[in-house]
Amino acid sequence: MITILAGGTGSVKLVRGLASVSKDITVICNVGDNIWLYGLYVCPDIDTVTYGLACLLDEKRGWGIKGDTFSFVDQMKRMGRPAWFGLGDRDLATHVYRTEMLRRGKSLTEVTIALAKTLGATSKILPATDDEVETVISTPRGEMHLQEFWVKRGARPAVTGVAFRGADRARPGRQVVEVIKKSERIIIAPANPVSSIGPMLAIGGLRRELVRAKERVVAVSPIIGSRPVSGPAAKYMKAAGLEVSPAGVASYYKEVAGSLVIAKTDWKMAGRIEQFGMEAARADIIMTGPRGEARLARYLAGKARN
Amino acid sequence: MITILAGGTGSVKLVRGLASVSKDITVICNVGDNIWLYGLYVCPDIDTVTYGLACLLDEKRGWGIKGDTFSFVDQMKRMGRPAWFGLGDRDLATHVYRTEMLRRGKSLTEVTIALAKTLGATSKILPATDDEVETVISTPRGEMHLQEFWVKRGARPAVTGVAFRGADRARPGRQVVEVIKKSERIIIAPANPVSSIGPMLAIGGLRRELVRAKERVVAVSPIIGSRPVSGPAAKYMKAAGLEVSPAGVASYYKEVAGSLVIAKTDWKMAGRIEQFGMEAARADIIMTGPRGEARLARYLAGKARN
Repeated sequence: MITILAGGTGSVKLVRGLASVSKDITVICNVGDNIWLYGLYVCPDIDTVTYGLACLLDEKRGWGIKGDTFSFVDQMKRMGRPAWFGLGDRDLATHVYRTEMLRRGKSLTEVTIALAKTLGATSKILPATDDEVETVISTPRGEMHLQEFWVKRGARPAVTGVAFRGADRARPGRQVVEVIKKSERIIIAPANPVSSIGPMLAIGGLRRELVRAKERVVAVSPIIGSRPVSGPAAKYMKAAGLEVSPAGVASYYKEVAGSLVIAKTDWKMAGRIEQFGMEAARADIIMTGPRGEARLARYLAGKARN
Repeated sequence: MITILAGGTGSVKLVRGLASVSKDITVICNVGDNIWLYGLYVCPDIDTVTYGLACLLDEKRGWGIKGDTFSFVDQMKRMGRPAWFGLGDRDLATHVYRTEMLRRGKSLTEVTIALAKTLGATSKILPATDDEVETVISTPRGEMHLQEFWVKRGARPAVTGVAFRGADRARPGRQVVEVIKKSERIIIAPANPVSSIGPMLAIGGLRRELVRAKERVVAVSPIIGSRPVSGPAAKYMKAAGLEVSPAGVASYYKEVAGSLVIAKTDWKMAGRIEQFGMEAARADIIMTGPRGEARLARYLAGKARN
């Protein structure tokens, strides 16, 4: 069994690659970007992974359901309600279903598993926790929810800090702990370390489990050279006091991962990574198309050299 | 001030007509067809009236917002969830907004007024009560919610009874009582008497107020000859033991209305209606287009002879 810790858009390629090379994949998904909108509980990372595994994902946008319409959010806008979050009309069925089930007393884990099954996702998806953890971005304009910073403010404000509200009280999902214990390999997706993986590492019980499993944990660097493969990782990493480089990623993961997979072009970094007590493995970490996804996945699953 | 007791599709023409001839119109709206769907509170009659007064109504269907899309409900169907109720994507914004406000502790009256304002409805709309009243149709296949009978079952089962669950405990909205006390005229729309007006008359406190105001209450017959102008009135009236005729309507309204407006062609009915202690007024009650709506409205508002 292989487990992958995943965020959303930045992780879905590798998640899909792994699902294509192995039947026994479990995805542990970030919940720090979950947000209540219009009284509905929206889980952007879980949904992106679910849609990705169900062949429903809008690949161009990197989120939402392909071919979706946006009448609902347009109507909300006309009604003078906040409408900065791109909620598609089909996508909305997911949020309405989830909210109804949660209100009926189901856990987020139960709902996530049910939704994945209903939508046809091919692997098991587990939220990191059933408790609410919220990634809060500090800016000179005040604190704001990650989604507000990222979507509403277009990631423009300076970032002075990143915090995970609720993480200190959150417990990992029971299945999450079991899955980490049992997995031959635990992969940390090439996601934004601070905002996508950070909220999971901030959950004490989950972090402790990873520390115990460290020798089985392989992280994939989301940074090549001094630039993220995609997304706003640099801004968050700097705010967290990290160097924007594979070595910076290594310093963030040093307690929870036994090795870091970096781009072949970053071979000069290997020495610095090893100083953190981690093995530095070099591979082709840019995934182009399903073949690229599967190639990296096979390598990480130990089924092929890269 | 003029008040109109209204259902949905069958009432919206006259409601709109009245709004076009007078600025001081209050609509008291049926709530018996309200239904929880997917954890959202849907108020079909209130919405039809609101959309009608906001020039948003899909006139062809008689419900929902014109030009709406149906991606959400299609997705629910794909997810194997019940999808028999036509919830448009724009329409959904209304239900999501309402549900969020109710969960925050607002009353249905407050939410209805806010929605009417937000959507641009030109008259005041009040739900008959803030309490839950549910119109239940008895059939040989068992009891079912009015909407289930009407939409899901296509009104096909035989109707053996109509009941208003919760009406015995429901209190009329406070503003409803004030409005009835103050109105020069209270009009009962040519709606289905049993299923659209009946749930309101079943609320003791509302019925008592109408009985007191009886001489100011004018009902418009939804039946011409022995056939309803539109909709399934006949089936419900028969189940309620009423004759499907203006006289049957009169017998249903005899305690709460001082007069009944019937079609000119039904002049032979006048005598039987007067036997119920009601005045029988004859007018052109078929409303064709905005002109026809306004003509009947002017007549009912006492501004013109018909």
